[in-house]
Amino acid sequence: MSLVVVGSVAFDDVETRYGRKKKVLGGSASYFSFVASNLSPVKVVAVVGDDFPQEYISLFENRKVDIEGLVRKKGKTFFWRGKYSDDFTSRQTLQTDLNVFSGFNPLLPDIYKSAPFLFLANIHPALQLQVLKSMNGNPFVACDTMNLWINTEKEKLLELIKKVDLLTINDEEARLLSGEFNIIKAGKAIQKMGPEYLIIKRGEYGAILFLSETLFFVPAFPLLDFKDPTGAGDSFAGGFMGYIAGQGKVNEKIIKKSMLYGAVCASFTVEDFSLERLQTLSPQQINSRYDKMINYINPNYI
Amino acid sequence: MSLVVVGSVAFDDVETRYGRKKKVLGGSASYFSFVASNLSPVKVVAVVGDDFPQEYISLFENRKVDIEGLVRKKGKTFFWRGKYSDDFTSRQTLQTDLNVFSGFNPLLPDIYKSAPFLFLANIHPALQLQVLKSMNGNPFVACDTMNLWINTEKEKLLELIKKVDLLTINDEEARLLSGEFNIIKAGKAIQKMGPEYLIIKRGEYGAILFLSETLFFVPAFPLLDFKDPTGAGDSFAGGFMGYIAGQGKVNEKIIKKSMLYGAVCASFTVEDFSLERLQTLSPQQINSRYDKMINYINPNYI
Repeated sequence: MSLVVVGSVAFDDVETRYGRKKKVLGGSASYFSFVASNLSPVKVVAVVGDDFPQEYISLFENRKVDIEGLVRKKGKTFFWRGKYSDDFTSRQTLQTDLNVFSGFNPLLPDIYKSAPFLFLANIHPALQLQVLKSMNGNPFVACDTMNLWINTEKEKLLELIKKVDLLTINDEEARLLSGEFNIIKAGKAIQKMGPEYLIIKRGEYGAILFLSETLFFVPAFPLLDFKDPTGAGDSFAGGFMGYIAGQGKVNEKIIKKSMLYGAVCASFTVEDFSLERLQTLSPQQINSRYDKMINYINPNYI
Repeated sequence: MSLVVVGSVAFDDVETRYGRKKKVLGGSASYFSFVASNLSPVKVVAVVGDDFPQEYISLFENRKVDIEGLVRKKGKTFFWRGKYSDDFTSRQTLQTDLNVFSGFNPLLPDIYKSAPFLFLANIHPALQLQVLKSMNGNPFVACDTMNLWINTEKEKLLELIKKVDLLTINDEEARLLSGEFNIIKAGKAIQKMGPEYLIIKRGEYGAILFLSETLFFVPAFPLLDFKDPTGAGDSFAGGFMGYIAGQGKVNEKIIKKSMLYGAVCASFTVEDFSLERLQTLSPQQINSRYDKMINYINPNYI
């Protein structure tokens, strides 16, 4: 079934120990939709400037992403520049130019409003709430956020979290949001804030799903080559939401399996810079890694 | 089947954010044997001084650990004092008095020499080799080591690793031993040094088993209360070796399941200081957490 993502489409300038890529395609909605398109029809809501090249638009079209909601505004496209430490344990933001993204007013084309699955990528919680309110019906809604909003817009964020079905954040953000250091305690505290499902991402160590009284752990898919972590979290989200939307419903088994799809999809993204690897990703390649993943975690599967 | 462990029995002085415990029972062979005794008969080879109290000896007897190989020497028992950072990500050694452990010559009682399972806890690799050579038959042998021996006794250590079936080390040690930063590359490089099985421990993030061409991931068992990480690695080893010895043989399914037993057993240890929690640990309690663990990692198990 159809899946809408609201987020950013951007130019990135990224440096890691494996090199530097200037003004390449980036943004949460880009990573999310390129991944999810392998598993479900996906529709993007985002804004770009008049400097955004047709070449990049074509990349979305090649992945069969619906871009009716990708608005072009006068001005420059959102630009982010960052550099990762050699061991990938930290990154430094060197430049952030919001440009047209600073006035982003995410309006959904009418046909998007009835989508049964919605992902609110990391944007201002007031905008996430606005999108949520504009939806018809009762979609399954997942959202992401970041330290900035936890620190500056906590009230709006808590209002949002109460209304979504699933929240996905990293371990540092979970600690900040809950005030708990122990990651299990942090997760339990956030569950009480409202969302039925919580995913805490732990980078190279995988992710934890909190659902009612239980937990589900998934490791990061093991890689010998790893070039650029940018977009890993959004690709994880694209994987799990794409799988859920592809199934057309949510239950305990589907949400657990969706975690494996998330981990698998993120592993393709980080193998190369920008969305390079995702441009040729196929459902078969995803399923092949999914089968390996099951073997890596299930002692009864030999 | 019977399982021999060669390692240390010590006095520890440990401080964490939850308090300080002075001159409590510690040492790799203590943690290992207390855990393993729930899953298999276990025999200890270690040395203590004449200051080692009967009260602590009784704790081993209560756990049905065979202490014929626990030698008492004139002098003081090995003493270690350390303090953990509040977030448990680092620890500082404040004092190490080897005492009688400095002249440790691990001699196995004859009846120990035919044991089919042997764990060489972290001692000098030359001593580990000596014990290995004194065994009759063809036991399944696992060993641990540490940064110190990788830095100062690499040749002896490599000679040992070539001869054991399983090596267990932490991620930092794996990087040091292999010269590879990527943990998967590090593991693959160490596999080439000889051991059929390699376990890389990652603390609160669990552990990875490397076996021939595949991998198996296990998370740390999730805990709301966590007081003292001392002995977690040795308890992990006690859990996996105890399970393997209890099964009486090794195959892919058994070694994978043994990883879950390792993670589960370590979780009991860290819930309290020293070996407090292990004194009353039962096979039923271990199996109960094992069942939860399967639920935490297997998407097909609901």
